Amino acid sequence: MEINGVKIQDTFAEGFGIKVSRLIITAATKHLAKIAATEATGFATSVIGCPAEAGIDQYIPPTESPDGRPGYAIMICHMAKKALGEQIMDRIGQCVLTAPTAAAFNALESEESFPTGKQLKFFGDGFETEKDVNGKKMHVIPIMSGDFLVEDEMGWKDGVAGGNFFIMGDSQMTSIVAAEAAVDAIHAIPGVITPFSGGMVASGSKTGSKYSFMSASTNEKECVTLKDQVETELPENVFGNMEIVIDGVDEESVKAAMKAGIEAACQVPGVIEIGAGNYGGSLGPYQIHLQELF
Amino acid sequence: MEINGVKIQDTFAEGFGIKVSRLIITAATKHLAKIAATEATGFATSVIGCPAEAGIDQYIPPTESPDGRPGYAIMICHMAKKALGEQIMDRIGQCVLTAPTAAAFNALESEESFPTGKQLKFFGDGFETEKDVNGKKMHVIPIMSGDFLVEDEMGWKDGVAGGNFFIMGDSQMTSIVAAEAAVDAIHAIPGVITPFSGGMVASGSKTGSKYSFMSASTNEKECVTLKDQVETELPENVFGNMEIVIDGVDEESVKAAMKAGIEAACQVPGVIEIGAGNYGGSLGPYQIHLQELF
Amino acid sequence: MEINGVKIQDTFAEGFGIKVSRLIITAATKHLAKIAATEATGFATSVIGCPAEAGIDQYIPPTESPDGRPGYAIMICHMAKKALGEQIMDRIGQCVLTAPTAAAFNALESEESFPTGKQLKFFGDGFETEKDVNGKKMHVIPIMSGDFLVEDEMGWKDGVAGGNFFIMGDSQMTSIVAAEAAVDAIHAIPGVITPFSGGMVASGSKTGSKYSFMSASTNEKECVTLKDQVETELPENVFGNMEIVIDGVDEESVKAAMKAGIEAACQVPGVIEIGAGNYGGSLGPYQIHLQELF
Amino acid sequence: MEINGVKIQDTFAEGFGIKVSRLIITAATKHLAKIAATEATGFATSVIGCPAEAGIDQYIPPTESPDGRPGYAIMICHMAKKALGEQIMDRIGQCVLTAPTAAAFNALESEESFPTGKQLKFFGDGFETEKDVNGKKMHVIPIMSGDFLVEDEMGWKDGVAGGNFFIMGDSQMTSIVAAEAAVDAIHAIPGVITPFSGGMVASGSKTGSKYSFMSASTNEKECVTLKDQVETELPENVFGNMEIVIDGVDEESVKAAMKAGIEAACQVPGVIEIGAGNYGGSLGPYQIHLQELF
Repeated sequence: MEINGVKIQDTFAEGFGIKVSRLIITAATKHLAKIAATEATGFATSVIGCPAEAGIDQYIPPTESPDGRPGYAIMICHMAKKALGEQIMDRIGQCVLTAPTAAAFNALESEESFPTGKQLKFFGDGFETEKDVNGKKMHVIPIMSGDFLVEDEMGWKDGVAGGNFFIMGDSQMTSIVAAEAAVDAIHAIPGVITPFSGGMVASGSKTGSKYSFMSASTNEKECVTLKDQVETELPENVFGNMEIVIDGVDEESVKAAMKAGIEAACQVPGVIEIGAGNYGGSLGPYQIHLQELF
Repeated sequence: MEINGVKIQDTFAEGFGIKVSRLIITAATKHLAKIAATEATGFATSVIGCPAEAGIDQYIPPTESPDGRPGYAIMICHMAKKALGEQIMDRIGQCVLTAPTAAAFNALESEESFPTGKQLKFFGDGFETEKDVNGKKMHVIPIMSGDFLVEDEMGWKDGVAGGNFFIMGDSQMTSIVAAEAAVDAIHAIPGVITPFSGGMVASGSKTGSKYSFMSASTNEKECVTLKDQVETELPENVFGNMEIVIDGVDEESVKAAMKAGIEAACQVPGVIEIGAGNYGGSLGPYQIHLQELF
Repeated sequence: MEINGVKIQDTFAEGFGIKVSRLIITAATKHLAKIAATEATGFATSVIGCPAEAGIDQYIPPTESPDGRPGYAIMICHMAKKALGEQIMDRIGQCVLTAPTAAAFNALESEESFPTGKQLKFFGDGFETEKDVNGKKMHVIPIMSGDFLVEDEMGWKDGVAGGNFFIMGDSQMTSIVAAEAAVDAIHAIPGVITPFSGGMVASGSKTGSKYSFMSASTNEKECVTLKDQVETELPENVFGNMEIVIDGVDEESVKAAMKAGIEAACQVPGVIEIGAGNYGGSLGPYQIHLQELF
Repeated sequence: MEINGVKIQDTFAEGFGIKVSRLIITAATKHLAKIAATEATGFATSVIGCPAEAGIDQYIPPTESPDGRPGYAIMICHMAKKALGEQIMDRIGQCVLTAPTAAAFNALESEESFPTGKQLKFFGDGFETEKDVNGKKMHVIPIMSGDFLVEDEMGWKDGVAGGNFFIMGDSQMTSIVAAEAAVDAIHAIPGVITPFSGGMVASGSKTGSKYSFMSASTNEKECVTLKDQVETELPENVFGNMEIVIDGVDEESVKAAMKAGIEAACQVPGVIEIGAGNYGGSLGPYQIHLQELF
């Protein structure tokens, strides 16, 4: 199967469950909203070494946002419910409450939720009040620079982590530029994030290592600079390789994101093949076959 | 004392000790370097609720960077040495090693250091090598998209946290714009960061609360929307109030940053007074008097 | 009439006719598309002293763009048809053809058009070819770095210039931040641009001057720093004043943009009144009454 | 000759004279200064089809700027003195005077100058005043949103246009990323601009054409997609080719920029050769030999 001359491998991405919250951070301007959303979703590429997986889902213009101000939908994800609740509290409390003109809204319809606003309000020391904003129950906390508004509860649900695909190109830079194009496209799909730096992963790993104390290590068979030293899995004409990793609110969102991202990557001259990462189906309950996306 | 018609209060910022590392993150382009540096310094406004305090110190052009590529000097800070070492390992390992074309260099002359590169190299699973880059001992770790270079050791030293000043203006937006100007100026001073979102703090706090379970709460006497409800400390004509918080590699850097930031803030029309936060000198060993900066 | 406590004056914006083209500039990434679109729409705030009025209308994600790549819809406007055609040729030929990976598509359904691609193709010196891209007739011009694609014809139609409103605030910075919020909102409305720097005008003018050689000069009655020197038209509590000027493909688009912009501006704390500029109805055929927008 | 394994061709860039002005545009924040500087230098890639060549030279932090506010040094260039003076007047008058909080300073020591501020002040309609700002004679023009300050005279001098080099890579994207790195490096050199979109030229041209009505056309021998159709000048393993074009205040600045740009480009994996464009020495008085730069 080919898209725009790019071979789509007959393989699948293997995903697994993760608990997901989706919030909208608004502010006086798009510029200020992005600052708060970026800080709140930083240091969150992978739960392996970060306290959460998080990222900006998409920009919400004033005409569509809960309070008529520009905002960014963000997602915060964790394997454990308790840790997710704590991360939301810490990231909102430390990075959004403290940010100029910011407010935080729930942006997920869900059965379960965390009492984020309900607890954060106590920072108001008795000066906090309540306000209805377009049907949402908001706590108004007076802070030094004005009022911080935070929704009473923040929803969470079972989502899907580990959606992924590989962009193999004729050079390292081709794969990077194509990965950037893929991330641009994925931002048009609501309900997904690409939590790594710039939305892309430069360092795929394998489980295990020759060093007994390492549980994971570089996947040398996918490394472009080791093609001559190892039994590579890279096609002969491939010299660039970047992975896109996707977390979503559900499998449909992850599929839509993979489809949009792959189609965009295939528009970049020099992209040769699209692959995906899996563990033979042994690890995760979700198998998203690339060729079935189109 | 006045600067450009703005009153500089006769008060001081009270700082305390913190352990500081300073690194340079380089990449193929300024755009890519910023992406890695931003992710690596996210979720790091205050050690009260974040795993570290971190931020971008300043842009390092290719002509001045350790490997001839554009980079950003970043700082990561923590009260505890052990936690600082772990944060550097996690933030470099999760947010920089994984980022496209990024590399990580030590940027601090210090007596003590963490073995960040020395340990991270094992991710290479035996394919890692060593390389001298302009006198620096770098580990070359082959990753999927190319090679990741990380310096053998990352220095740390005793620095200063809690440098601060308040920008009081004739409106909320005046204080925000002036705070942005202050942060712009502070980026010109090497060795300091303003770790909060956008470099500014919208929510100053006081210790204690009417709620017994809260150890800190909003500082109502500094809140612009509570002027009519409480015994305010804000001048009558002040309706905006933003705080700049600064961490630095030493007291001199923090002083230089406060000076540059205050001078820049005073150029914004509508700024009325500059104050500072302290605990009467009871908490921190550093007392930086505003009027002595000029 | 009030919106969120902000008085909407009982006045109208006076618009006039202008000839408008709308194009989509795509590129390999959003980053590269913005670079080309920004250069192509620069030096174009007002036809009084610029060769055109131009600006970015909105971002077009890969999932919605004519070639599956990220793009920006831009608009270029001029009073004279001939001059508009030349401006499109020059701006595409000098700023888009020359830009990395860029392509230019028509984005206007119209009865009349300019033969932009039809003429630009000759740059290919005989190596140019034709290609159908999703039903669009594109010329493929080999250039140094790859192929430049440009659509055969670029449509133009009679549009509306001079949509406007004034944002009066309690400080200069309030009006600037609110104007930025307004521009953020207007970007969500297709078919309009705000051609001035940052989308806002800091310097409203009146016709005539005490200097005989000046046909226009500062409108002192609207100047915040002249309130004490002249018979001001500004309310007593207003100390900031910014204008948003809008060009659109038709009156409905301009109205929608004014509505969205005003609503967003009214969310910024410190905004006091919204006004509009007109010449008593003597100059332009379009009268857009503020209060009728809501 | 090689730099980091990249062949530096034994050739030279051929430059010619151009008249150059250098200004600093300051504003309340870096963000606002960039907006004004970008608009004022847009539509200015080449005097062949644009009214000027212009671009941002470099960022000037508040600590180094003429009025203590963040700014951008920009350059505006033209072959003809009269046209240059008009361009400065139009670009300052239309794009900077109209921009929020902006001011315009001369940033060139020169023997000759244009009376830009001296003439622009009349927009003040009698309300204009004069002010000394750190030794500079500024005109203060009250505008709607505050005061616009512009320096009395803007200097100009004979500079050098047409500094250039070619970045040939193993793919189109390699050359683009390397060109971006080169532009990042060049921004560290004061007194130069790279006037094309994103600082790079995707479309080198030759004089003449098979079409009699075209005086210039695509340089097919440098086109990566025509390698199989024409007698190419590109090395066999080169599939990407981008040009950097530089204008400078003098030959030394252009040389320093070429050196910095080439060194940065050579750090990007996949770059193969660096070339330069000339007309055999017949056209321009400046011959800058690549290998003599190092």
